[in-house]
Amino acid sequence: MSSNNQVYPVIWNDQSPAETLRGHVLLIDQTRLPNEYAVVEINRYEDMARAIETMIVRGAPAIGVAAAYGVYLGARDIQTTDRGEFLAQLEPIAQRLRATRPTAVNLFWAIDRMVKTAHQTLGAVAYLKQTLLDTAKAINADDVQTCHQIGDHGLEALPASPDKLRLLTHCNAGALATAGYGTALGVVRSAWRDGRLERVYADETRPRLQGAKLTAWECVQEGIPVTVITDNMAAHCMQRGMIDAVVVGADRIAANGDAANKIGTYSVALIAKAHNIPFFVAAPLSTIDFAIADGAQIPIEERNPSEVHTVGETLLCPTGAEFYNPAFDVTPAALIKAIITEYGAIAPAALKDQLASKQVV
Amino acid sequence: MSSNNQVYPVIWNDQSPAETLRGHVLLIDQTRLPNEYAVVEINRYEDMARAIETMIVRGAPAIGVAAAYGVYLGARDIQTTDRGEFLAQLEPIAQRLRATRPTAVNLFWAIDRMVKTAHQTLGAVAYLKQTLLDTAKAINADDVQTCHQIGDHGLEALPASPDKLRLLTHCNAGALATAGYGTALGVVRSAWRDGRLERVYADETRPRLQGAKLTAWECVQEGIPVTVITDNMAAHCMQRGMIDAVVVGADRIAANGDAANKIGTYSVALIAKAHNIPFFVAAPLSTIDFAIADGAQIPIEERNPSEVHTVGETLLCPTGAEFYNPAFDVTPAALIKAIITEYGAIAPAALKDQLASKQVV
Repeated sequence: MSSNNQVYPVIWNDQSPAETLRGHVLLIDQTRLPNEYAVVEINRYEDMARAIETMIVRGAPAIGVAAAYGVYLGARDIQTTDRGEFLAQLEPIAQRLRATRPTAVNLFWAIDRMVKTAHQTLGAVAYLKQTLLDTAKAINADDVQTCHQIGDHGLEALPASPDKLRLLTHCNAGALATAGYGTALGVVRSAWRDGRLERVYADETRPRLQGAKLTAWECVQEGIPVTVITDNMAAHCMQRGMIDAVVVGADRIAANGDAANKIGTYSVALIAKAHNIPFFVAAPLSTIDFAIADGAQIPIEERNPSEVHTVGETLLCPTGAEFYNPAFDVTPAALIKAIITEYGAIAPAALKDQLASKQVV
Repeated sequence: MSSNNQVYPVIWNDQSPAETLRGHVLLIDQTRLPNEYAVVEINRYEDMARAIETMIVRGAPAIGVAAAYGVYLGARDIQTTDRGEFLAQLEPIAQRLRATRPTAVNLFWAIDRMVKTAHQTLGAVAYLKQTLLDTAKAINADDVQTCHQIGDHGLEALPASPDKLRLLTHCNAGALATAGYGTALGVVRSAWRDGRLERVYADETRPRLQGAKLTAWECVQEGIPVTVITDNMAAHCMQRGMIDAVVVGADRIAANGDAANKIGTYSVALIAKAHNIPFFVAAPLSTIDFAIADGAQIPIEERNPSEVHTVGETLLCPTGAEFYNPAFDVTPAALIKAIITEYGAIAPAALKDQLASKQVV
């Protein structure tokens, strides 16, 4: 954290300006929050792959940025001056990083951009390596800027009344899930900055509790009033008129606007619809996968059952019970009022046309 | 547990048949399951009140039975042979037990029945005491029988296909929540007995995790296949066609069929409706409160925030976050296909007429 309480979960640290090849990545260890604030130093691509797998770094945009640095760290250690050999050795590094998690498309987007940059850059291997670091830094910086744009566009899309909004969010699509500022929490931050926010309701988001742990922590850092509820309380809160709008992030959005996000998002979208509460998805363009037509084609990661049956040291379930642990679900476009991107808030059905008209896809 | 694995959470134990006044109640300590099976001996009404408050015994029908024994235990210790004095001293005992939990109406129903019995019984105080014990035992035995009837009526009400059903339940409306066999799990048990059950999906039911802990434990005892999911996975499971019907219990049902049950039940009802999956509420007549017109009048207990922010020894949330912890929510009658009582499965709108025609209300 910097002194102004801004959170940057993925930071490039140059050991010495003259020796950038010996720099490293600093990750906030998100598995230890909120009880412990620890920073992990990553020097090798394999360590970055493990950090993504174990969710030391998580959140679709953040793992894209982390993987970009991972590609560079791997490239840095390739011991050749032959360009063809360098590019050949880069491929298994990219493959290892691609295999870390299946759902968030930003991961593949960032890795592909890095590999493409290597192939398209002329010059010696040392220059390619420097270009890859510059590219990773650009992806990092762009993501922070993108989140600020998403936050401001989202604020414009929120209901005009009441003046002070009660916003529900699910999981953590915050600064910690991006390079900084956040997507869904970017909207929250912009609303807070402009005096439009009364309170955030944070679904705790079982099984990994990113809402209780990370979203609550981010809000507390900035003095944003936050009430943590268990996931199953959201419908009751809506029934009692306590929620004005829902804003969540996304891990992959299909061309038709179907959005994969943390497990439970679909449930929130259904209950918001039942109460006529607008439901927004906030995500950068890099989260949209125009290569797939609809959400049914988005691969859904299944994680270890231990995430369901154990919290901390406490075993919750009896021996003999079985478990199902899908990490994501898909919210149909029809339940989404708008997808808030850095290019504005766009109705899901208009996604492709609107972004094509801006010449960004 | 008896040797045939049947679970009875509230049992009257006569120390000696000739000395029933020295008997006591045995409660399965439900706060220690599934990791530890422990039985608590209750000899005084104040201890019973605390056992209900701390949820050593929980579940609407079970706390009704427990409170009935509690009234008797209090009555047993009244030191007077004067009938008027005895009845006067019985009142604060009943009041203490009534004040334990606000939502489940079975509690008030059972206590009122005990107090009414005392007032309507002629004879000496010793005879009144014996009659109160007999009445509590009758409430206990009746509840087991009622649950078996609910189970069998529920089985008839379940969808005819597929042949082997995948049933979702929320919280624990099982043997542990009743005097035995269960309401929602009574339906599950009857379906299992008759070969109509493929599998139970148990919502873990945050914050107290009665699904993960108690429903899973009950199913494992009897070899019923059970998959535990976090509450926010149910919509995803329905979207994937994994659930054929939902059966839950209730803590209080209004005259119009609105049903209060464990927090998150309303959420499940909404998402079941969105997927055209039938949603059933299984509860005895004693859960129906014809004195209140609709669910808006059902008092909703708010419990300690620690249930939300801590699991076992693990603190989940940062200091500075706020919490909301309603223990129940209200499912509107329109979302309920039928309320399964010991008198049959009844559409919510027909509740009063149907039960009146059976001369039970």
